[in-house]
Amino acid sequence: MRKIEHIGIAVKDLAASNLLFEKLFGAPAYKEEEVASEGVKTSFFMNGPNKIELLEATNPDSPIAKFLEKKGEGIHHIAFDVEDIVAEIARLKAEGFTVLNETPKRGADNKLVAFLHPKGTNGVLVELCQEIG
Amino acid sequence: MRKIEHIGIAVKDLAASNLLFEKLFGAPAYKEEEVASEGVKTSFFMNGPNKIELLEATNPDSPIAKFLEKKGEGIHHIAFDVEDIVAEIARLKAEGFTVLNETPKRGADNKLVAFLHPKGTNGVLVELCQEIG
Repeated sequence: MRKIEHIGIAVKDLAASNLLFEKLFGAPAYKEEEVASEGVKTSFFMNGPNKIELLEATNPDSPIAKFLEKKGEGIHHIAFDVEDIVAEIARLKAEGFTVLNETPKRGADNKLVAFLHPKGTNGVLVELCQEIG
Repeated sequence: MRKIEHIGIAVKDLAASNLLFEKLFGAPAYKEEEVASEGVKTSFFMNGPNKIELLEATNPDSPIAKFLEKKGEGIHHIAFDVEDIVAEIARLKAEGFTVLNETPKRGADNKLVAFLHPKGTNGVLVELCQEIG
């Protein structure tokens, strides 16, 4: 794990939150992207070497819709940049972590991603992500 | 705001979580520090340009104790590195954010810190932190 790639924040209204985070960072989102397979619309803000991802649910079965219903708006996950996601999944499994998807899947922002079960990480939803070269 | 300085994670048992996050990152915490004024014991892990801070409450009135009681273990706050915390507080107040402590206070890890009210930031507790030179 080389750095925090991004922090994912669940929001109810992406357009309104884009304006809010533009004020916070003093710069607008550099892209918006829909990930239909996850039922989300996303936007991304740069913050030096890191990013902030805002996520709005696009259907009621989306994991983000369920998170909003249960916990309300707020930080949803933390994503770490990894060089080799397959090797990192194997290392973390050997350390006893539960990997939710052992085969990396395509995420937003041109990434292969995998998630660790938050029950094994003090309630933190950890995402591993590798840039698709 | 120049980067994510750290992510703060509320945990029940700092010693146990230190072992867990050592497995996650493949390297141990580089320091532990108690901040009596905030009622917390903390540990810090490096992750490239970023840090992860684990926080355990040392008394039942600690904000971390209240967070654990209400929400359980998990991500508590996100801290951004700023060059001039006084100027940044003024900028964010002018943008309409509510700053919880308008005078920066001493935090862990040799920092001056201030927090934004999460009601104005989509439920995200945002910390500004400036290294004490």
